[in-house]
Amino acid sequence: MTSWLQIPKNSPFSLANIPFGIISSAKVPSRVAAIAIGDYALNLNAFASSGGFSQLPAIQPHLGVFSQPTLNAFAALGRPVHRQVREYIQSILRADTPFPQVLKDNEPLQKEALLPLSEVTNHLPMQIGDYTDFYAGLNHAYNLGVLLRGPDNALQPNYKHLPVAYHGRASSIVVSGTPIHRPNGQVLANPTATPKVPTFSPCKRLDIELELAAFVSTPNDMGKPVPVNEAEDHIFGLVLMNDWSARDIQAWEYVPLGPFNAKNFATTITPWVVLVDALEPFRVPSLDPENRENLLPYLREKRTDGVFDIPLEFEITNAGGQPTTVSRSNAKNLLFSFPQMLAHHTITGCNLRPGDLLGSGTISGTEPQTQGSMFEQTRGKEPLKLADGSERVFLEDGDTVVLRGKAGTEGNYVGFGDCSATILPALKLEF
Amino acid sequence: MTSWLQIPKNSPFSLANIPFGIISSAKVPSRVAAIAIGDYALNLNAFASSGGFSQLPAIQPHLGVFSQPTLNAFAALGRPVHRQVREYIQSILRADTPFPQVLKDNEPLQKEALLPLSEVTNHLPMQIGDYTDFYAGLNHAYNLGVLLRGPDNALQPNYKHLPVAYHGRASSIVVSGTPIHRPNGQVLANPTATPKVPTFSPCKRLDIELELAAFVSTPNDMGKPVPVNEAEDHIFGLVLMNDWSARDIQAWEYVPLGPFNAKNFATTITPWVVLVDALEPFRVPSLDPENRENLLPYLREKRTDGVFDIPLEFEITNAGGQPTTVSRSNAKNLLFSFPQMLAHHTITGCNLRPGDLLGSGTISGTEPQTQGSMFEQTRGKEPLKLADGSERVFLEDGDTVVLRGKAGTEGNYVGFGDCSATILPALKLEF
Repeated sequence: MTSWLQIPKNSPFSLANIPFGIISSAKVPSRVAAIAIGDYALNLNAFASSGGFSQLPAIQPHLGVFSQPTLNAFAALGRPVHRQVREYIQSILRADTPFPQVLKDNEPLQKEALLPLSEVTNHLPMQIGDYTDFYAGLNHAYNLGVLLRGPDNALQPNYKHLPVAYHGRASSIVVSGTPIHRPNGQVLANPTATPKVPTFSPCKRLDIELELAAFVSTPNDMGKPVPVNEAEDHIFGLVLMNDWSARDIQAWEYVPLGPFNAKNFATTITPWVVLVDALEPFRVPSLDPENRENLLPYLREKRTDGVFDIPLEFEITNAGGQPTTVSRSNAKNLLFSFPQMLAHHTITGCNLRPGDLLGSGTISGTEPQTQGSMFEQTRGKEPLKLADGSERVFLEDGDTVVLRGKAGTEGNYVGFGDCSATILPALKLEF
Repeated sequence: MTSWLQIPKNSPFSLANIPFGIISSAKVPSRVAAIAIGDYALNLNAFASSGGFSQLPAIQPHLGVFSQPTLNAFAALGRPVHRQVREYIQSILRADTPFPQVLKDNEPLQKEALLPLSEVTNHLPMQIGDYTDFYAGLNHAYNLGVLLRGPDNALQPNYKHLPVAYHGRASSIVVSGTPIHRPNGQVLANPTATPKVPTFSPCKRLDIELELAAFVSTPNDMGKPVPVNEAEDHIFGLVLMNDWSARDIQAWEYVPLGPFNAKNFATTITPWVVLVDALEPFRVPSLDPENRENLLPYLREKRTDGVFDIPLEFEITNAGGQPTTVSRSNAKNLLFSFPQMLAHHTITGCNLRPGDLLGSGTISGTEPQTQGSMFEQTRGKEPLKLADGSERVFLEDGDTVVLRGKAGTEGNYVGFGDCSATILPALKLEF
């Protein structure tokens, strides 16, 4: 499938992708819906207003969704509509498009609606009501368990029976590119001293967590669980996510109710939502297919290929330095699929709403340099080397972190684009 | 302070209160802002439209907030405005009102804007972006710690240094009167067997948690902590809250990331938001004033009377039975004040938004029958007796639970009204 539009061969936004997002620009000051294609954003509001959807009658009653400042209303239209719109846009952009008059041969509309990504500002794609973070990265849970409790008790008894999760903080989810202040908080300067007395300090163990996350589209009513085999139709699409973690704050605060200040200061996501339909070719079995037999029926999917083979990586660039790829992982390293997470989330009757975000948990491999966090790789003490020879156990001020992920092959990549942020120094607070 | 309006002496909504809420009725089908006074709601939208605020010029530019379906916009106007509006409404309702023409002698406006509470439907007062639940009820934390770990390690080392908290589920917060389905979920039928294998079951240990909760008014930007001595001005007001808890689901799932399905199915709040100004006369020192000296400076309030003396209680009525008051507690049983919770929440730079909700944690006393949950009172095995002689260890289907709280004395109560819900049977699910 090739396009009449020039698309760089290494672009994560090939014609096979068509991810949805929210943009503005000098020319388009109000936020509107768009798709990414190669080095361009296609402004769907302008496209719709100029009759771009004339060949797709089903979407006509809903064109107003593209002028909204979030994708919530579009997501709420449901998977069959997303699928139609994506396939229609692919057909418009194909070299052999059956509708050349819509965009291919329509220079005025190209000029109006095709905006170079370099001139576009990305915004959060959805208004996020609730954010839930799972812990389905089996290798990450194991690695962390070994560090905290040793190899014999690394995984809790519940771990393989249910997708462990906690509620996260929705207000501080920001889009890629937003700088992050190192948080201040309570830490134990000497964790082995008794009695344990905390000090106030900038976080000294600031870490990355490499995750995928799914946006909810179709809601479910309170009291109405979503069956696992219908759950995927409640998912709008996926983004990459960096669940920043203050390990020293977490170690002191997290018993007995879980992480709070260690995570609430920021979470970064990519701006373009990749539909599950775009990831269909990359389905593979989950990390431990035999675990299916141990699951309670409400978590047993008919399909056994619920996760995706998407190479992931993160790199660190120190201020003024060169990028260093620190870790290469893969999205297939999950014990549970997003439909299983969603079914578990709602089994009590909990209602999900369009725009709710479900994080996968940190995605680590089993080999060296495949871990999704620095803590796993350095064990909190064995520094990793950056390209310029400097060392890191955790992040330093001025470091820029970029997560990336794309599936497929050259010319046909389905990817997320950069999930990026620079670490700013902690605020100096006076009391 | 007496009113020209007849107010029952035991009403929680005396002239000293003036709580804000969102209502609709047969006559007023769209949701609008209101205050509660005695047995009436005063429709603030109708009141404003008919010139009711003519004697309060400061609010004139903002009258549109009263036609909104939530109080978020009103809350965002900030504490000085809430205070002015409350005091103005008190002045209008006073027997010796300086402005009798506004409402006292204005029968048409009384007819239009004063609606009997019995004819009004209450709605959630705010659109809740994020919900955080703290654990500041020292006696509850101790009681639960004794049950889980014995008296020597009842409180974790961090407990007195920071207000422990977890992120809760915002989507399933409902207003008093909404029935609650008993949740289904994973439980350990035999917790001591090895290996631990869960079963799927309706929750058998469904419990109450009696809490106060604070709504945020003024937001703070991401990266900008709110100093503890300014934090109260970021609070719009308080409600009563029942943080329903599925103890058996919780016991199996909550290590290591905290409660998730055990809490996500429902949380019930009262519809009327009581301003902190209305609670000023009831300030008392927190549960352990000497603990202040152990706190890091960012948590040390100048004032030492940051909690409120508000008698609280909950009652259970079995289907067709009599109400039984099971527990009498008091809101002063908190180790940390809401300003301390808010300061801790934001110390990392976490941004709060108007409508965010902060729960206090369960509020228990130290004596028998003063606990804020059934688990503490029955220890999970010693039944309590209801009025008709039936017994409860945890809640049964058909039980109606009502939380209540009011401060002050007859004729001048400042209270929350009922926080009520009936337990419906678990859904029968087929897989």
